[in-house]
Amino acid sequence: MWNYEKRLQFPVKITKTCPKSAQLIISQFGGPDGELAASMRYLSQRYTMPCKKTAGLLTDIGTEELAHMEMICAIIYQLTKDMKPEDAKTAGFDAYYIDHTSGLWPQAAGGIPFNACEFQSKGDAITDLFEDLAAEQKARTTYDNILRIIDDPEIREPIKFLRAREVVHFQRFGEALEQIKDSLDSNNYYYFNPEFDKQMMQARK
Amino acid sequence: MWNYEKRLQFPVKITKTCPKSAQLIISQFGGPDGELAASMRYLSQRYTMPCKKTAGLLTDIGTEELAHMEMICAIIYQLTKDMKPEDAKTAGFDAYYIDHTSGLWPQAAGGIPFNACEFQSKGDAITDLFEDLAAEQKARTTYDNILRIIDDPEIREPIKFLRAREVVHFQRFGEALEQIKDSLDSNNYYYFNPEFDKQMMQARK
Amino acid sequence: MWNYEKRLQFPVKITKTCPKSAQLIISQFGGPDGELAASMRYLSQRYTMPCKKTAGLLTDIGTEELAHMEMICAIIYQLTKDMKPEDAKTAGFDAYYIDHTSGLWPQAAGGIPFNACEFQSKGDAITDLFEDLAAEQKARTTYDNILRIIDDPEIREPIKFLRAREVVHFQRFGEALEQIKDSLDSNNYYYFNPEFDKQMMQARK
Amino acid sequence: MWNYEKRLQFPVKITKTCPKSAQLIISQFGGPDGELAASMRYLSQRYTMPCKKTAGLLTDIGTEELAHMEMICAIIYQLTKDMKPEDAKTAGFDAYYIDHTSGLWPQAAGGIPFNACEFQSKGDAITDLFEDLAAEQKARTTYDNILRIIDDPEIREPIKFLRAREVVHFQRFGEALEQIKDSLDSNNYYYFNPEFDKQMMQARK
Amino acid sequence: MWNYEKRLQFPVKITKTCPKSAQLIISQFGGPDGELAASMRYLSQRYTMPCKKTAGLLTDIGTEELAHMEMICAIIYQLTKDMKPEDAKTAGFDAYYIDHTSGLWPQAAGGIPFNACEFQSKGDAITDLFEDLAAEQKARTTYDNILRIIDDPEIREPIKFLRAREVVHFQRFGEALEQIKDSLDSNNYYYFNPEFDKQMMQARK
Amino acid sequence: MWNYEKRLQFPVKITKTCPKSAQLIISQFGGPDGELAASMRYLSQRYTMPCKKTAGLLTDIGTEELAHMEMICAIIYQLTKDMKPEDAKTAGFDAYYIDHTSGLWPQAAGGIPFNACEFQSKGDAITDLFEDLAAEQKARTTYDNILRIIDDPEIREPIKFLRAREVVHFQRFGEALEQIKDSLDSNNYYYFNPEFDKQMMQARK
Repeated sequence: MWNYEKRLQFPVKITKTCPKSAQLIISQFGGPDGELAASMRYLSQRYTMPCKKTAGLLTDIGTEELAHMEMICAIIYQLTKDMKPEDAKTAGFDAYYIDHTSGLWPQAAGGIPFNACEFQSKGDAITDLFEDLAAEQKARTTYDNILRIIDDPEIREPIKFLRAREVVHFQRFGEALEQIKDSLDSNNYYYFNPEFDKQMMQARK
Repeated sequence: MWNYEKRLQFPVKITKTCPKSAQLIISQFGGPDGELAASMRYLSQRYTMPCKKTAGLLTDIGTEELAHMEMICAIIYQLTKDMKPEDAKTAGFDAYYIDHTSGLWPQAAGGIPFNACEFQSKGDAITDLFEDLAAEQKARTTYDNILRIIDDPEIREPIKFLRAREVVHFQRFGEALEQIKDSLDSNNYYYFNPEFDKQMMQARK
Repeated sequence: MWNYEKRLQFPVKITKTCPKSAQLIISQFGGPDGELAASMRYLSQRYTMPCKKTAGLLTDIGTEELAHMEMICAIIYQLTKDMKPEDAKTAGFDAYYIDHTSGLWPQAAGGIPFNACEFQSKGDAITDLFEDLAAEQKARTTYDNILRIIDDPEIREPIKFLRAREVVHFQRFGEALEQIKDSLDSNNYYYFNPEFDKQMMQARK
Repeated sequence: MWNYEKRLQFPVKITKTCPKSAQLIISQFGGPDGELAASMRYLSQRYTMPCKKTAGLLTDIGTEELAHMEMICAIIYQLTKDMKPEDAKTAGFDAYYIDHTSGLWPQAAGGIPFNACEFQSKGDAITDLFEDLAAEQKARTTYDNILRIIDDPEIREPIKFLRAREVVHFQRFGEALEQIKDSLDSNNYYYFNPEFDKQMMQARK
Repeated sequence: MWNYEKRLQFPVKITKTCPKSAQLIISQFGGPDGELAASMRYLSQRYTMPCKKTAGLLTDIGTEELAHMEMICAIIYQLTKDMKPEDAKTAGFDAYYIDHTSGLWPQAAGGIPFNACEFQSKGDAITDLFEDLAAEQKARTTYDNILRIIDDPEIREPIKFLRAREVVHFQRFGEALEQIKDSLDSNNYYYFNPEFDKQMMQARK
Repeated sequence: MWNYEKRLQFPVKITKTCPKSAQLIISQFGGPDGELAASMRYLSQRYTMPCKKTAGLLTDIGTEELAHMEMICAIIYQLTKDMKPEDAKTAGFDAYYIDHTSGLWPQAAGGIPFNACEFQSKGDAITDLFEDLAAEQKARTTYDNILRIIDDPEIREPIKFLRAREVVHFQRFGEALEQIKDSLDSNNYYYFNPEFDKQMMQARK
């Protein structure tokens, strides 16, 4: 279970209303490579992860991604809370405004609703860790793109923090993958080993 | 942000492998009226909720739903962790097994992936609270249906706990709705008040 | 069955081409809280509604929502029928134009196709009525947002009529909920009654 | 607008509970080629159909498809209304039962929720009519498949009526297509005419 | 199987960066009536097509649509490869840029991800061919709309080629339909023949 | 462009009708980690891949995945082509049969339609290659699961071939990743290099 602590992992202080930026950053809330997808990926995978230390890592990172999701929501909220309908009109935010006013709802910048097809929990230790490495790179790239487009330093600060955390997560998953390769028994280890695989195939024939 | 506490909100001790039951209970993980949907609905709505006390309620219940989601995942995991492929074949669990082995992935019993279209965050206090009342009733009904189909007392115990919590949440949201009706100013209060609405329409004409 | 009557429930006379407004109003055709969703929700729920009077109410309101859907389509059609391709370009309507020209197709303003995940038919009288109360509030809020953004009085008139009808529907569903609470027998009545629920749980144990 | 007439277009009298059959027939309610998809396709296309007679045909057939949808729902309802939870378990209906009890909700037999991607409204007279011809054939084929699988004569009677109506609709759309080919002016007529098309391309170059 | 030949079916030489045009043309990559949908429709249907000549036609046209998809991707790539982030901002391409940079990803202009609900493979020869005739008309109309909106002759040239090919495909499918009508035996031939249908119904009764 | 060669990359000779197995194997046609997803992932990513050699690798593997998709379709077709409706009934294949007869349509075993949310093309060389490594592992795991469930040696032979190819693809992508790490200039290289990243952030501040 989780206990809520009423503080952001990193401060968010946005003073300028800008629904346009909110409309782009929302991908890190409900987009395919956003924080909600990351959290749910890891919190789902952890149950069947055979290495208990890595299962704990998945729980920790999955929990941290919830805090990241909270930061992104705080950014979007602060960018839009003083928005007048006219601001929505000029910003291209109006389509979102019609169905959600300035409420938060998890979608991608381009409008696709968050959905579980955007991540995988495969029940195979090697596979799940590669899925996680890819996820962290995809999140990092999305932050790169946000930083290429958005200039406001008040937004860039928390975004840069979040991006740096993705790189750390990537490193943690890389270390976990190395450990799994050493510790998995022959029943599970298919990594770069066609010779072994041939034997397994023989046995089942 | 959230801190993880390594215990279930209510104990889950399943001793009998039964992928068939897992395939049905998974709706309370990734189904339209499940715990993940509930959690995301409340954690999304809380930002724009004008009454701070109710915003806190949304945070608390949203956080508790994560713990419920965890219990449901524990049930599914315990029902399938010792599953042999032949068990999957006889149980009708095989379609899920092909794409996820015994890993946890949020979908409904009928196969629909979890997606944000299954809940709403509307940015209007009255509307969001009615959405929440409906959500709790829908979750309650899903638990009713699980209890009608599944006999195993080891499964029924945690399910009955979860169902009872839905009823409590429903009551909390009902109280919050009453408070909102009293406290919202004329700018926001449209509840059962066509007379007021007419005046507002006049003003904008 | 239904018989078509060739008149709109309320007149729609739009004289100014404006694809921009059409692009926003389309949420009340194919959006999550629009008239098509409302109609299908009620026309689906009516079969299993145990109280025959309320089943009739669901049929009546579901039928009226089809007329509302027709009005929304008429608004969109009149806003775009004289549209030249250049109008689509300047209005941001061009993405829709590529795939539908000026044809009507049910989607939300943000592009999400209409889909059944956006409403629920739960087969439980109390639950279905709460779902309906929430639906009417969500529709009312969408109309509020349209009225905040769109100034053209030719559009505002039919929209205000539609909004007022949502409030009436909300009242009708509220009355139906009160009747259900009185008339349902113990087998079905779970409303705010944990004491009864405990007994039912005991019986099945 | 529509007026409801409280009778089915063709009688439905099912006396045997069979959730298994319901689970298959539901494709003609919420499946890709079902009655709801047909109705929405035609009622959407009618606005931009330049030939007024064909626009009227679309309204009439779209309205009739609502009556067909009603018959399908009546079949499903009668097959499941006396269903006990144990019936759901033995029939494979249980996944649906968890999320909807015996309530009606539009999905395909395989579980896909009804969604607007399953039909098109293109805003081009020739194209829309071909879309409609294809739709009637797809519906006819679905009825063929239902008749191949289901033996109960009480179900077969209304299904055969519905299938026959699809064939009639197909014929009506074929006649409408012939009329359109004659009546459309050079601005719109691209049917089998690359010579004309070349000229139009020249003009715009 | 397929062998790749490193040339485009028709040349694509775009010299002006224009993400706005890319955002519209992408519908012919991943939109409901685009080249990927066409290719997958035909390559799926070919297996159960009873007339081997038509199965070959489906393979040929399905293979050609891959080449068309490649041309569309080349157009999009050339329109965006020299794009600077500021270009994305001014062009409305920024929402796509956040999640894909200038990478190619199959979606519709309005944002809907490519999905199999957008085409059908019905396993019935007549039905599948009508589905194909409709598909070619829908693709043709999408090209019409692109030509109405986009002026750049460098883009118009390959688009006009692609449009002309749709017309040819439509003709091929029309010829195939005529052949099927002659060659199918009574078990399969339902085309415009209620008399025969009645007999088949009798036999199964 | 592609040229079709009328032979399977590896022989498929299935002599026993078994719709049950078809229903599971279909995940490698239209499932989240199947051959169609793989093909489209690579054929989409190749345009923006800066290293031309790797772009060629993506084209080659993407083309080979089409041949794999063809083999999977051949397996499904051979398993179901002589299927009688009664076979569908006993095998649980009936829900699919209603909407597709024995036609091929890309979905997952559990019913989810193939959709682009199941893969990513991110426009970043490192990220796209990690996405590809993960994809090959996910496909490998799906083949593992098929081999755990299905005993028929006629099916196992081509499946084992396909699985072995996934391992080879994984190796190729691993080599490509190493080359990219060496060849990318500072503008693009973020791999495990927070020091460099800090400088880039400084520059943009």
